[in-house]
Amino acid sequence: MEQLDGNEGTSAFHMPEWMIQFADQKQEFNKRPTKIGRRSLSRSISQSSTDSYSSAASYTDSSDDETSPRDKQQKNSKGSSDFCVKNIKQAEFGRREIEIAEQEMPALMALRKRAQGEKPLAGAKIVGCTHITAQTAVLMETLGALGAQCRWAACNIYSTLNEVAAALAESGFPVFAWKGESEDDFWWCIDRCVNVEGWQPNMILDDGGDLTHWIYKKYPNMFKKIKGIVEESVTGVHRLYQLSKAGKLCVPAMNVNDSVTKQKFDNLYCCRESILDGLKRTTDMMFGGKQVVVCGYGEVGKGCCAALKAMGSIVYVTEIDPICALQACMDGFRLVKLNEVIRQVDIVITCTGNKNVVTREHLDRMKNSCIVCNMGHSNTEIDVASLRTPELTWERVRSQVDHVIWPDGKRIVLLAEGRLLNLSCSTVPTFVLSITATTQALALIELYNAPEGRYKQDVYLLPKKMDEYVASLHLPTFDAHLTELTDEQAKYLGLNKNGPFKPNYYRY
Amino acid sequence: MEQLDGNEGTSAFHMPEWMIQFADQKQEFNKRPTKIGRRSLSRSISQSSTDSYSSAASYTDSSDDETSPRDKQQKNSKGSSDFCVKNIKQAEFGRREIEIAEQEMPALMALRKRAQGEKPLAGAKIVGCTHITAQTAVLMETLGALGAQCRWAACNIYSTLNEVAAALAESGFPVFAWKGESEDDFWWCIDRCVNVEGWQPNMILDDGGDLTHWIYKKYPNMFKKIKGIVEESVTGVHRLYQLSKAGKLCVPAMNVNDSVTKQKFDNLYCCRESILDGLKRTTDMMFGGKQVVVCGYGEVGKGCCAALKAMGSIVYVTEIDPICALQACMDGFRLVKLNEVIRQVDIVITCTGNKNVVTREHLDRMKNSCIVCNMGHSNTEIDVASLRTPELTWERVRSQVDHVIWPDGKRIVLLAEGRLLNLSCSTVPTFVLSITATTQALALIELYNAPEGRYKQDVYLLPKKMDEYVASLHLPTFDAHLTELTDEQAKYLGLNKNGPFKPNYYRY
Amino acid sequence: MEQLDGNEGTSAFHMPEWMIQFADQKQEFNKRPTKIGRRSLSRSISQSSTDSYSSAASYTDSSDDETSPRDKQQKNSKGSSDFCVKNIKQAEFGRREIEIAEQEMPALMALRKRAQGEKPLAGAKIVGCTHITAQTAVLMETLGALGAQCRWAACNIYSTLNEVAAALAESGFPVFAWKGESEDDFWWCIDRCVNVEGWQPNMILDDGGDLTHWIYKKYPNMFKKIKGIVEESVTGVHRLYQLSKAGKLCVPAMNVNDSVTKQKFDNLYCCRESILDGLKRTTDMMFGGKQVVVCGYGEVGKGCCAALKAMGSIVYVTEIDPICALQACMDGFRLVKLNEVIRQVDIVITCTGNKNVVTREHLDRMKNSCIVCNMGHSNTEIDVASLRTPELTWERVRSQVDHVIWPDGKRIVLLAEGRLLNLSCSTVPTFVLSITATTQALALIELYNAPEGRYKQDVYLLPKKMDEYVASLHLPTFDAHLTELTDEQAKYLGLNKNGPFKPNYYRY
Amino acid sequence: MEQLDGNEGTSAFHMPEWMIQFADQKQEFNKRPTKIGRRSLSRSISQSSTDSYSSAASYTDSSDDETSPRDKQQKNSKGSSDFCVKNIKQAEFGRREIEIAEQEMPALMALRKRAQGEKPLAGAKIVGCTHITAQTAVLMETLGALGAQCRWAACNIYSTLNEVAAALAESGFPVFAWKGESEDDFWWCIDRCVNVEGWQPNMILDDGGDLTHWIYKKYPNMFKKIKGIVEESVTGVHRLYQLSKAGKLCVPAMNVNDSVTKQKFDNLYCCRESILDGLKRTTDMMFGGKQVVVCGYGEVGKGCCAALKAMGSIVYVTEIDPICALQACMDGFRLVKLNEVIRQVDIVITCTGNKNVVTREHLDRMKNSCIVCNMGHSNTEIDVASLRTPELTWERVRSQVDHVIWPDGKRIVLLAEGRLLNLSCSTVPTFVLSITATTQALALIELYNAPEGRYKQDVYLLPKKMDEYVASLHLPTFDAHLTELTDEQAKYLGLNKNGPFKPNYYRY
Repeated sequence: MEQLDGNEGTSAFHMPEWMIQFADQKQEFNKRPTKIGRRSLSRSISQSSTDSYSSAASYTDSSDDETSPRDKQQKNSKGSSDFCVKNIKQAEFGRREIEIAEQEMPALMALRKRAQGEKPLAGAKIVGCTHITAQTAVLMETLGALGAQCRWAACNIYSTLNEVAAALAESGFPVFAWKGESEDDFWWCIDRCVNVEGWQPNMILDDGGDLTHWIYKKYPNMFKKIKGIVEESVTGVHRLYQLSKAGKLCVPAMNVNDSVTKQKFDNLYCCRESILDGLKRTTDMMFGGKQVVVCGYGEVGKGCCAALKAMGSIVYVTEIDPICALQACMDGFRLVKLNEVIRQVDIVITCTGNKNVVTREHLDRMKNSCIVCNMGHSNTEIDVASLRTPELTWERVRSQVDHVIWPDGKRIVLLAEGRLLNLSCSTVPTFVLSITATTQALALIELYNAPEGRYKQDVYLLPKKMDEYVASLHLPTFDAHLTELTDEQAKYLGLNKNGPFKPNYYRY
Repeated sequence: MEQLDGNEGTSAFHMPEWMIQFADQKQEFNKRPTKIGRRSLSRSISQSSTDSYSSAASYTDSSDDETSPRDKQQKNSKGSSDFCVKNIKQAEFGRREIEIAEQEMPALMALRKRAQGEKPLAGAKIVGCTHITAQTAVLMETLGALGAQCRWAACNIYSTLNEVAAALAESGFPVFAWKGESEDDFWWCIDRCVNVEGWQPNMILDDGGDLTHWIYKKYPNMFKKIKGIVEESVTGVHRLYQLSKAGKLCVPAMNVNDSVTKQKFDNLYCCRESILDGLKRTTDMMFGGKQVVVCGYGEVGKGCCAALKAMGSIVYVTEIDPICALQACMDGFRLVKLNEVIRQVDIVITCTGNKNVVTREHLDRMKNSCIVCNMGHSNTEIDVASLRTPELTWERVRSQVDHVIWPDGKRIVLLAEGRLLNLSCSTVPTFVLSITATTQALALIELYNAPEGRYKQDVYLLPKKMDEYVASLHLPTFDAHLTELTDEQAKYLGLNKNGPFKPNYYRY
Repeated sequence: MEQLDGNEGTSAFHMPEWMIQFADQKQEFNKRPTKIGRRSLSRSISQSSTDSYSSAASYTDSSDDETSPRDKQQKNSKGSSDFCVKNIKQAEFGRREIEIAEQEMPALMALRKRAQGEKPLAGAKIVGCTHITAQTAVLMETLGALGAQCRWAACNIYSTLNEVAAALAESGFPVFAWKGESEDDFWWCIDRCVNVEGWQPNMILDDGGDLTHWIYKKYPNMFKKIKGIVEESVTGVHRLYQLSKAGKLCVPAMNVNDSVTKQKFDNLYCCRESILDGLKRTTDMMFGGKQVVVCGYGEVGKGCCAALKAMGSIVYVTEIDPICALQACMDGFRLVKLNEVIRQVDIVITCTGNKNVVTREHLDRMKNSCIVCNMGHSNTEIDVASLRTPELTWERVRSQVDHVIWPDGKRIVLLAEGRLLNLSCSTVPTFVLSITATTQALALIELYNAPEGRYKQDVYLLPKKMDEYVASLHLPTFDAHLTELTDEQAKYLGLNKNGPFKPNYYRY
Repeated sequence: MEQLDGNEGTSAFHMPEWMIQFADQKQEFNKRPTKIGRRSLSRSISQSSTDSYSSAASYTDSSDDETSPRDKQQKNSKGSSDFCVKNIKQAEFGRREIEIAEQEMPALMALRKRAQGEKPLAGAKIVGCTHITAQTAVLMETLGALGAQCRWAACNIYSTLNEVAAALAESGFPVFAWKGESEDDFWWCIDRCVNVEGWQPNMILDDGGDLTHWIYKKYPNMFKKIKGIVEESVTGVHRLYQLSKAGKLCVPAMNVNDSVTKQKFDNLYCCRESILDGLKRTTDMMFGGKQVVVCGYGEVGKGCCAALKAMGSIVYVTEIDPICALQACMDGFRLVKLNEVIRQVDIVITCTGNKNVVTREHLDRMKNSCIVCNMGHSNTEIDVASLRTPELTWERVRSQVDHVIWPDGKRIVLLAEGRLLNLSCSTVPTFVLSITATTQALALIELYNAPEGRYKQDVYLLPKKMDEYVASLHLPTFDAHLTELTDEQAKYLGLNKNGPFKPNYYRY
């Protein structure tokens, strides 16, 4: 942590002085594998490229236009055809969605205001690959306002909101994405973003690592001009650490997935609400008095447990980590092995990031009408494959709800086929996406403006000071008034009045 | 974090293999000052050498024996006089207290059992300087059972339980401590522990750094044989980092204050209960409907806020750190500046570690009967000195409760003269002390058994694996059943089945 | 259940005197206080005949068959045509819905089992007028199993589930109902239930009083054979008290709306969950940190406040009743006048049963994006009419969600046009409907079997013992084990071991 | 307050018929259900004449003056000797206590202010028999300010605060009470209050019924002039109902024990806090993670469960009443029989009002160190007598804490020997006592001013409007702002704008 004393050269974007010093708080990850175990502990909202998106419904697609966007000739009102979307005519509807999202993304709007004088991303050529939603659009247009040029593809073949893509294309963003891409389409879109005559990206914003992977594979020379990669997904971060470990990471990369603020919102605060929403929308069940077992007491598990307890459920917890286990005890939950309660519970929720936490054996022992769902990582936690056997009957009773029926008539209620409940059967609030998008924007600014040598060919966490800045940009939403240290107090505490306020190991 | 791959040589104490590898998770702190800012963020239960101890009442001292223990000739029943306590005859009463404490310190008792075969501290000569209470006695006797010889002094001139000291002396421990030592007595007792013919310590267990300081000053050569220092207080840890920074730390030291488990219990879990207890015992107030402002939303503040909210108080929070501020918002507390609510609140609680958080100006504006107290660090948070002016009248209405009366008749109710409420007006549960004592015992074992070179002349955090071990030893208290990873799962997660289960940056 | 048959003397249920005189507390509109006041304090789930029903979606109606059911010739598989439903062919789908509902209505199923020997409703001819849903079907088939003959119409022109109606018709119930009846259809259906050759009802089960009204108006002589009316809605109960007061009630009637168990579930427990569900489904908002004002702290308000507080919202309460106001204080909510917080809150929720609680003036002062909704009674609480003025623009952004836009661009988000959020934008859990249906069934049994003279031509509350019985039938759902009094204890307490366990004024 | 004078016809408070007949529901031991049952459901704070009073410590009695106050000659500074207290010289200290209490009894102070013009108790001669504490003193002096003359004795031989009694005597109140009266003293004091030349009481304020009993027995003629009795204890109320039933009640009496506001505070709000306080002060235990069984889910049980759940305990509930049982389920507690959990719990708490809820058999099966205590009624709930057998050893480890030791070494920790924990080991907050005292004052005003015929020789509940008034007088403490109905709203609801706002059966 000696870096705090560092002297840092210059930085564009006239953020308060303190921002200049961010790089010094770097946390190195390059020397060892951040094993997948690390991956398992968090659960990025954007990670799941095969999950369905309940919120990603397309609002205006009524008639099914079966022509592939790749085969269409479209131009926006300014005559540009440097984009590929489903239907440029949906732009107006998409614009309204973007405007609504802007109202709930105050931090990005604040960044835009601050950028009216200076342009911290002037000269930046950003290629991005993320979900394409109204919130992403607000991010992209913010990056534009900060001076950047952007080209964009989707990181998921289903998640694109066609209207939003149309609105972006209409306002001049080269966007290549539509809902329901084929695998081939997917890579074609990415390629159209980077393989452009007369334009070469110098920054990458990735979500899942596919874009980064593509450039590595197809255009490795491009990295010579690239100043850095910002990656927000668990999977993508994992890939970057692997590259780094293998000595193949040739530019600095920033892991924004593990930022404090983003983590708390993606996991604890978001799941505290979405567990209730996901269960209610799919089953209309009542929570009061229900017995629930939550597997895993990380941030996601903590959120689920708190919400269900508050609604009058009786909650049991399973854990493998004794420290988290002790936390569960002190928070008032009985710590059990799954086998101990599997016969009696009404709901089983997995939040472990592990695989086969709920096995066929467990499923066999559950009582009739038991609800089983996954809030954790990917779709491995419940051994859904084990249920696809001839003696069991599957009955789809609603969208995202299957009854799996045993020969004796017992049914279990499986939600989202074991995929992530909160993505499949609930929505991610704009405010959470605002945290993520702001984190991404600040990481891009930092990497782009960092003086030579601050970042090496390695994976970094977002400097704590910027993490704090993300948080502070969101406080006005709550009409929250931060206290400032007096000079005397700052001296007493040995802190800079502008932060960072905590040591790196602080646990919040 | 490359250390995880390390190959570690041998270690005594047949703990599961994994324990052997602890040292690799070392966390270096030596290269930069851990400024007092860091100190301010935690609040060790043992830190305060001048705080009064409500729980440290002496049970049997009825008649006041005014003779100084130093002037008395006392022998225990085995004829030894290598101790100095108030009254060896109180041993029986103290023994009962120790026995009661044993029942609530299951982890140490478990360690004793495991040590029946091997003696991980065989040959260890430990000199200790801590509060001398029934819980410390259980620790000392555990260290003895693990093979160590111990000599002990008190780290606070008021906190010794004379009966317990007597019981320890009676059972053969050279203890030098009594309640109400003079400054001179204090150092005399410490000296008697280390300045012994034919016995030289090879391990130090310190609480506050006074013992370490004394040896540095008086017997620097003694460090040649010392294998390590274990320090649990904020202040002592701060001193060690200063020594380290100055290049003067000549043995490895372990900072057990910042262990995850200990921190959670000392701060969050303990204060969640003691804020209620401290307020109730001193004021008999009702919590329901009261307006409270809590300054600081770290672990202590979080505990205070949660408890008071649950009791029906309306809680406001002040913060300087935007991340903690955002947490307060998401937990349902209005984030304000102190000035905004100072006129309306019924209670003001400081939990910042900062100084002059509550100023005379604030105190002037409080309403009549407002209660003011400190749960934070030391006694600096409330500017009590500013109240010692001629125009204000102080009235002591109960032990630890003063009314400070303004000329217009307004009274504020000041608790413990601004010192720590939870130490002055409440008690620390044995279970919390058990966590601390177990952490200390494992740190001693680790440092004593570490192979040459694992630890350098630096300050280390307790390896995460041992932190997890402390937690696991306390799970049986709650009849809590930990789940074990299958081989397949461990492989999937890239984890050792025995832990550690989390990366070092994990925030719990 | 043997008590139900009441061979225990004249007053089988030990109802205190006052119960018989309950009618004296009848509710008039004009002459004395606390009448509609009473109505305003509860909020029956079934009351609202004009509210839309989110859960009442028809599952199988894809093609729009425009022929009126009255013009169709339909027969069920046994050849009967004594019914009128949308499409008898949908019976199979409806049957599955009924079977699913059966699994969550354990109390009715338990009644069926107990009725295998005795038939407490043997000879009963029940005419019913309620919402026709899967849960109602379970009730009807239970009444059938208990020995009754039933004929049924819908109490709401929109709420009929056509498939369920078909399933009931298929299994032999004369049902006259479909989704989307005209006013004329509505009365025609009711008439078809009562105006039958060779069949005359002797019991009425009503929800809203329309059936009762029709018989009064058209077939007053029918009351000679009718043993009683069971009414569950606020409105229907109100009408009965009016009849009673006017001396026109010619049979005993039972007010099951005010039963303890039903009230708690309809209001407190149901709304604690549906407030979150209703807000989430319509707005996808995040609750954490939001400022909310809840108008009214009755059961509904208490449920809303508890849920939102638990989700991290900051909740303010308004009240007119000082006792409820003091409860709000002790539960940790600031008690304010609406004007004090109207500018700062993010959400306004009405739960008063009153009218014009939120006025145009309040609406004018709300901040941009403020959400306004009603959980109370009817659609009078928010003065929605005042928003239908030329200077304001209404924009329907989703089903049940309108943006009302001020000239300066400010938008407020109005949910369900001020109608009941929990009925319009959420669902009523089957478990809550099970409580209601069980209460109705027991009330029918009681009235039908009551010995001559127990009930006069008046309105009664369900005997407490039966209220307790409703509760006890639902305990097995939670694997809850009730303790039984010993003889000695019952004697000590002066209680019958089988209840009732509380005096009638007990407040739960 | 003008409503209190009620020129609103015969039944000013629109009490329903049944209220007048309330006496019929009187509480007997043998003859009909729901009598003592009633008693068991509430738990008056003042009921227990043999419970010790932790808060009733005498502040200034250091030297033990063994002379009986009856043998002393004392005069106050005005020369009066019409009192009998321990030591008139302690008056100054007592006065300060009274002044402190005044600050927390805003409702009585408000009544004093309102009484500056009118004197609603002018001419009233009140004889009182209650605990004599600072709070009672505030009540007495308020009654004085309202125009009454008072004479006062203690209702408990231990609970008198001598300094307060001295202060009252000094300011001219004829008080006859001291801490540590003998049985003979007790009745002598009461007699001195009523047996006075030239002064005859016309109102009685009683707590326990002893004063009423004494007058019945010794001075029955006195009732000719007495306008009414106000009684606040469960026991006293029970006695009044017995008198009434026997036709021997010769004046109106008001049962203030069952007032809504008083009940909520005495039971729910008070116990929610005192359960934690009582356990903490006696055992210093930590609540987090502890398993607790609470017997009984009435108001007291609800308070205990809510508090412990909030502190992280795992709480089980036992119940005999299915409605309360269902409430426990919906609030998230597992409903069990005591036997199911007795082996595993760390704490057993009784709140039933029943007897032998915890039997010797249960005690035999508890685990080592289990804590057993009673929050319910009287000292019958735990079969303490069964523990007084030769094979068990009792060890007093602290005041109010006994270890009962089984032959095999198992200990259970019995608090307060099974008497009420919250009275024995905690304190009753002044605010709760303020509610009670205000209720008493208003009841006295009502009875004293009621027009002829409003009250007959029967037992009444406090009119709801006055209950609401008690609440409203306490709202300013919380800076709580009540909303007023508009004329239009009042008309819509059929309510008087000044209340009462609820029907009598409303459950709050």
